[in-house]
Amino acid sequence: MSTQTKWVYSFGDGHAEGRADMRNLLGGKGAGLAEMCMLGLPVPSGFTITTDVCTYFYAHDRLYPESLKGEVNNALAEVEKAVGCGFGDPANPLLLSVRSGARASMPGMMDTILNLGLNNATVEGLAKISQDARFAYDSYRRFIQMYSAVVLDISLHKFEDIIEDVKRARGFALDTEMTAHDWREVVTAYLQIVQKERGKAFPQDVHEQLWGAIGAVFGSWMNQRAITYRRLNDIPADWGTAVNVQAMVFGNKGEDCCTGVAFTRNPSTGENSFYGEYLVNAQGEDVVAGIRTPQHLTIKGKEENDSDLLAMEEVMPDVFKQLNDVRLKLESHYRDMQDIEFTVQHGKLYMLQTRTGKRTAMAALRIAVEMVKEGTIGKEEAIKRIEPSSLDQLLHPTLDPKAERQVIAKGLPASPGAASGIVVFTADEAEDMAGKGRKVILCRVETSPEDIHGMHAAQGIVTSRGGMTSHAAVVARGMGRACVAGAGELSMDYAKGEMRVKDIIVKAGEAITIDGATGEIMLGEVPSVQPELSGDFATLMQWADSVRTLKVRTNAETPLDARTAVKFGAEGIGLCRTEHMFFDTSRIIAMREMILAENTQGRRKALDKLLPMQQKDFEDLFTIMDGLPVTIRLLDPPLHEFLPKTKAEIEDVAKYAGVDVAQVERRAAMLHETNPMLGHRGCRLGISYPEISEMQAHAIFGAVIAMKKQGKTVLPEVMIPLVALKKELDILAKVVHDAADAMMKESGIKFDYMVGTMIELPRAALRAGGIAQTAEFFSFGTNDLTQTTFGLSRDDSASFLPDYYRTGIMALDPFVTIDQDGVGELIKIASERGRATREDLKLGICGEHGGDPASIRFCHKLGLNYVSCSPYRVPIARLAAAQAAIENDRDVQARLNAA
Amino acid sequence: MSTQTKWVYSFGDGHAEGRADMRNLLGGKGAGLAEMCMLGLPVPSGFTITTDVCTYFYAHDRLYPESLKGEVNNALAEVEKAVGCGFGDPANPLLLSVRSGARASMPGMMDTILNLGLNNATVEGLAKISQDARFAYDSYRRFIQMYSAVVLDISLHKFEDIIEDVKRARGFALDTEMTAHDWREVVTAYLQIVQKERGKAFPQDVHEQLWGAIGAVFGSWMNQRAITYRRLNDIPADWGTAVNVQAMVFGNKGEDCCTGVAFTRNPSTGENSFYGEYLVNAQGEDVVAGIRTPQHLTIKGKEENDSDLLAMEEVMPDVFKQLNDVRLKLESHYRDMQDIEFTVQHGKLYMLQTRTGKRTAMAALRIAVEMVKEGTIGKEEAIKRIEPSSLDQLLHPTLDPKAERQVIAKGLPASPGAASGIVVFTADEAEDMAGKGRKVILCRVETSPEDIHGMHAAQGIVTSRGGMTSHAAVVARGMGRACVAGAGELSMDYAKGEMRVKDIIVKAGEAITIDGATGEIMLGEVPSVQPELSGDFATLMQWADSVRTLKVRTNAETPLDARTAVKFGAEGIGLCRTEHMFFDTSRIIAMREMILAENTQGRRKALDKLLPMQQKDFEDLFTIMDGLPVTIRLLDPPLHEFLPKTKAEIEDVAKYAGVDVAQVERRAAMLHETNPMLGHRGCRLGISYPEISEMQAHAIFGAVIAMKKQGKTVLPEVMIPLVALKKELDILAKVVHDAADAMMKESGIKFDYMVGTMIELPRAALRAGGIAQTAEFFSFGTNDLTQTTFGLSRDDSASFLPDYYRTGIMALDPFVTIDQDGVGELIKIASERGRATREDLKLGICGEHGGDPASIRFCHKLGLNYVSCSPYRVPIARLAAAQAAIENDRDVQARLNAA
Repeated sequence: MSTQTKWVYSFGDGHAEGRADMRNLLGGKGAGLAEMCMLGLPVPSGFTITTDVCTYFYAHDRLYPESLKGEVNNALAEVEKAVGCGFGDPANPLLLSVRSGARASMPGMMDTILNLGLNNATVEGLAKISQDARFAYDSYRRFIQMYSAVVLDISLHKFEDIIEDVKRARGFALDTEMTAHDWREVVTAYLQIVQKERGKAFPQDVHEQLWGAIGAVFGSWMNQRAITYRRLNDIPADWGTAVNVQAMVFGNKGEDCCTGVAFTRNPSTGENSFYGEYLVNAQGEDVVAGIRTPQHLTIKGKEENDSDLLAMEEVMPDVFKQLNDVRLKLESHYRDMQDIEFTVQHGKLYMLQTRTGKRTAMAALRIAVEMVKEGTIGKEEAIKRIEPSSLDQLLHPTLDPKAERQVIAKGLPASPGAASGIVVFTADEAEDMAGKGRKVILCRVETSPEDIHGMHAAQGIVTSRGGMTSHAAVVARGMGRACVAGAGELSMDYAKGEMRVKDIIVKAGEAITIDGATGEIMLGEVPSVQPELSGDFATLMQWADSVRTLKVRTNAETPLDARTAVKFGAEGIGLCRTEHMFFDTSRIIAMREMILAENTQGRRKALDKLLPMQQKDFEDLFTIMDGLPVTIRLLDPPLHEFLPKTKAEIEDVAKYAGVDVAQVERRAAMLHETNPMLGHRGCRLGISYPEISEMQAHAIFGAVIAMKKQGKTVLPEVMIPLVALKKELDILAKVVHDAADAMMKESGIKFDYMVGTMIELPRAALRAGGIAQTAEFFSFGTNDLTQTTFGLSRDDSASFLPDYYRTGIMALDPFVTIDQDGVGELIKIASERGRATREDLKLGICGEHGGDPASIRFCHKLGLNYVSCSPYRVPIARLAAAQAAIENDRDVQARLNAA
Repeated sequence: MSTQTKWVYSFGDGHAEGRADMRNLLGGKGAGLAEMCMLGLPVPSGFTITTDVCTYFYAHDRLYPESLKGEVNNALAEVEKAVGCGFGDPANPLLLSVRSGARASMPGMMDTILNLGLNNATVEGLAKISQDARFAYDSYRRFIQMYSAVVLDISLHKFEDIIEDVKRARGFALDTEMTAHDWREVVTAYLQIVQKERGKAFPQDVHEQLWGAIGAVFGSWMNQRAITYRRLNDIPADWGTAVNVQAMVFGNKGEDCCTGVAFTRNPSTGENSFYGEYLVNAQGEDVVAGIRTPQHLTIKGKEENDSDLLAMEEVMPDVFKQLNDVRLKLESHYRDMQDIEFTVQHGKLYMLQTRTGKRTAMAALRIAVEMVKEGTIGKEEAIKRIEPSSLDQLLHPTLDPKAERQVIAKGLPASPGAASGIVVFTADEAEDMAGKGRKVILCRVETSPEDIHGMHAAQGIVTSRGGMTSHAAVVARGMGRACVAGAGELSMDYAKGEMRVKDIIVKAGEAITIDGATGEIMLGEVPSVQPELSGDFATLMQWADSVRTLKVRTNAETPLDARTAVKFGAEGIGLCRTEHMFFDTSRIIAMREMILAENTQGRRKALDKLLPMQQKDFEDLFTIMDGLPVTIRLLDPPLHEFLPKTKAEIEDVAKYAGVDVAQVERRAAMLHETNPMLGHRGCRLGISYPEISEMQAHAIFGAVIAMKKQGKTVLPEVMIPLVALKKELDILAKVVHDAADAMMKESGIKFDYMVGTMIELPRAALRAGGIAQTAEFFSFGTNDLTQTTFGLSRDDSASFLPDYYRTGIMALDPFVTIDQDGVGELIKIASERGRATREDLKLGICGEHGGDPASIRFCHKLGLNYVSCSPYRVPIARLAAAQAAIENDRDVQARLNAA
């Protein structure tokens, strides 16, 4: 980097070098502090070391830019001047806080050090100036404790033990009983611990303290919990954190002091009322520590929560009024609900932070809609304000927050929603019990396509193995079933019909409750509440729909899913996976008979049995979709997925098919594949066994004709999967066209339909120009396209992707958010080459990414016609599509006005 | 197609509408006949229906172009005029032959009909004109028989039975004893068979006969044996065949008639002497049928083969002289050895075919080199003449052609060479027995990386499952071991220590012989002969080397392979697969210990044991390669490939590693992957366990330092596999650079090395621009790049690729010859983007394709620096690279002159 780079930005005293819009450089906290200074709000002086330093730090083996030291010293001198104290001055010491502050809020993930600048000399000065030796030594011991834990990596409990020892010796119960003398004794003991643990004394040089703290904060950007948090919240590792160094103010200097946090509106409900908590005579960390119960800011808050403790509004009415003015000023300045931190020192208010407040989805909707009505923001802004993924919270039942719960294990929050039911361990059992009207939770080590019927029958699914994109997770999200995946503590014992966590045994038939939004598994039935799609939701979605150009379809094959999706606003089916229709108990037998057949004739016989069932499925779907387009994908998975695995099942199948067990086993062995993902599946099945595709075409068009006879409109789009070569598509498109021609002729009824393909292999993307000669539409199968482009198995990557997040190779799971650089380029190439051949080529996406907001944005930019996602993600996709339009299109305002 | 298209080309009487260079349109036979006419050689009049008609035929549901009929009629009229007979004229009938003729010779694969134009009326005319009723009726019965088999699809044996019946009734032994009357009786019976089998009379209308025959010949382009032949010989289905219709001449009209086939030089040895066979008083098919023993053309041939039968040179000296003149004229005209067919009718010579003659590799070399010396062709032409793949014949031992052999089964000719040895069923046994000095053949259902040491120890490998690109086949070709793969008739019984074919049982310890060039498996030890790389070979390869710009390296990791490759002219190692070094019995234990380790420390302990062994491996390789570049790929396969599979092995490992069996099993279960090809392998291992990469880097540089201390030059290129993201490479390149820096510092010895990557994933190809910032070279891993680009598992595709060849979706196996349209575009993109970043980026290819001539041509065109292939393909690659240079470069002649 050039030596011109400015690494440090000062603020305080009504001036600041930074601004709110320099958030990327200064972090959220730094930008907020600067902006508050500019607004004339009372902010303790300080400075921000930029995120660029963090980037430099990690790019240069944890070294700092050369000019940093000088800039810090200059900024520090300014703070000294503003505050009127000297850093390290025993007579009048300046104390500092050193805090992280990333572009996005990462609460509690990184390190903070308070009271920095205290040493054996300055502590005495502080005691003298504050005329409060107890406060001074308490501050010093807090500092040593924090610094030792964060910078020197000494376990906190060693320090806590000492306080306990002293309290025990004195017969004290609370810290507040400790005297100045006691704290001094603690400090002495603390300093000894540091000497013993680190072999050298606690740093008395305040500059050494400062640089130690700065280094620790930058270092904490790469601690494990920060990495995990970033991954879970899609925050790239290369953003880096800033470090904020600021003069200390103290809320713990007496009864005219306090510290608190507040939201400018209610973050749970969105109600426009001041909402927050404070503690008298306390430092910020005491609020967090939870030792004392915080008090409400307002009388309203106190009353609503039946609190006996006095509100700030009552205790310090003047300062409260000041604070409320700050609240209004910040809201009107930022035009959004703010989350603020403040400290009152001897009756004087100091603002320590302002940032956009986190809120529930419900609150977000209410705030956005109300701010539009108040005239604070426009509809565009309101649409942009809602995090699309957050809508998920509103669509599923949730646990009653007041209910008691006994959590026995935690897994991944794989599919949201709360569900209770009795434990079952097999899909058949799930179906049986559900048939008898029981609610069940299907518990498996992992699930496979054969479990689909059981997953459908269940209220929720638990697995002890697998990640967020495991079969169980993906299918459950698609079905809108609650799912907790990869709960590794659970050990399943199918034979005994039980599962264990430590010494707890849960037997089949016992009730459990799962929360798919948190990953918790609880004993017994915990009450839940049904979602209400409030008026604000409807209002905002209506605005969104008027703005977006990208259509939103759903991935669905069951009537339930289709109906759910339509309720959520789906504009068609983008992916009907016909194979799911074959796993049904009544059908899998015929399917297996087909697979076991030794020749075309035998296969045809079995297919003839499947034909009417499949046609009926399509009639049901067409009826529900009522004239909306329905994309039907021909059989995709390798045939071995349909074959039985257990001995008993194999015997069943042999009996039914009238062959011996050895033959079933032989066939299964023949069909075994080393890499089934790259095996005999997709259109390859149709090439080998065209009679399967033919049956499916007949079922589709049979259903179309049945609908037409009832006077209904149907728009079927037949999709050939896994095409790599144009000729594959040519051959199977001909099978479909021939079936359509024959059935039109036979029935005398004409109907429209399209034939297209999935683009899910790199070769297909590259050869899209030729493929579009035959295909009338492309649907990007981004799951498989991601697998092949990366050479990465979705089923196997969970074991090593954590290493990728840890080392910063990947920030986001490519199976959740499209890898725009690699997979994205192939989608772009395919779109361009396809449309160069066929100008009106319809383009859509039907992978899991179709429900991911970032991916939807990308699809909008590429000019796709639609995305298709699981039913419960339809509203999310609608909103994300609207946001994409707002970000990219010029005529959004006109669309809003026209709406 | 436009109505302007000319569908029919006439020839005869010293004139022709076609030429030799119209081979694509007229087929080889048609072009040859036309050219011979132009040369003034005696050719019976006729016409060629073009290959375009074949293409049209298959594109239009087996219909002909509208104008074809008229053109055929016109051409037929010309023939009638030239010959002076009328087609269907009972008084003076014109008889025709109808033959296929594709662009490439496909001997015996398609249909032929002779004597067409005979019916109940014309046969009498023929009898009269020829004054030979026996000849006329014999011709008629031959025609009915051929036409019925080919056009009417009636089984030949029904006709043969009749002849047998008549002969038995008459008490005849030979056909020649049959009289005109007998043949007439046969004809009557034949006509009855046709009536009975097809429900209608044999066509008497000669035009119906002609169109039936034409249709059958076009139809035979798509018969199963033609499709199979094309696939085996890389002939595209869309080339199509031409149909040649020609006036009949008869070699069976008496003792002054004959028919024969000849080569202008000896096709086995290449010797410049006339070589061929003939039969007096016979028709062409009699030579093929093998009922009579053919006689030699020349006295020299007769004597060399100890034949008692008279040579043509003796029997018909005048006609022979004419024929010899034709031979010389054709050779000097075509400037290549010709394969000719002729018929002599009443002492008059007719030429029926000339085409470039097929020859052994040895003959091809001799002919090419001698023709250069004779001044007939230039060196460029000589280089172009040799089919690179044919050199394979010269590099391996072959079975003594004179030895007796008892073939018990046939599999795929997976890796050439003949090998004998005793049967063993496990890799360990192979190693044991080989250690005791026994030659062994390793027989397995299929092989896995764990069998490598056994494959190495064996003379040859047999598998009962797997295709041409199965593990066994690929590894065997790489090692130069003979291999017969996928011999499905063999059933292996490891438990009993035997294998069975039908009722033959071969026990462990019994000797067998395999021929990897034919796929034959024989009982006992069949003598073989060692290859001799003759002077012609050396001469031609020297010319080739002077022309080519593409370097040729080898894929090798064992000293034996490396030495073999150097002997064959390898210019470095392009791929040293380090994992192969870990499968060795003495090392796999340490490897497994590493895999079972629970933490980094445990892994390091095991790696420390592997380090000296691995370093020794590299020292050996560097010594053999003596200053040539050596590309070393870091560990690539998923770790589970190293884990034991059998209970006994698991127990062994548990014992050695000091853990219990359950732990080994648990670890194996943890490492199990659904799609190992897309799993935790390649650089992903290094990201998770950098200590493995570190150990390998230390071993490499340790070996380099040891070499440098001996004053030797070493050029190591460290290759990081399976990179998809630049950061993966960054991290592992740093591990390698750090190791190099540390070791240079420690040893005080400086050395050169490079760090690069394999480009084997579509994403890496697309992101090559960024990757080249870190990578100093790219090596295209086209095996995996093909798997991921197509989404096609090499291990699983054998089950359905035959359907792809059958339906014409694919002409070539994409794992053998690079798919230029898809995979090739990615290679092109990666090359361009990589070199845009780093102008001198070294580019190579190390997949199986590196030894495939068509792929090598493609690599040359893309501007790659080198190809790397298995040792036994090095000469093939050198020649193919030379041919690519000749086809593409302008300054080839200068290079040849400079050489």
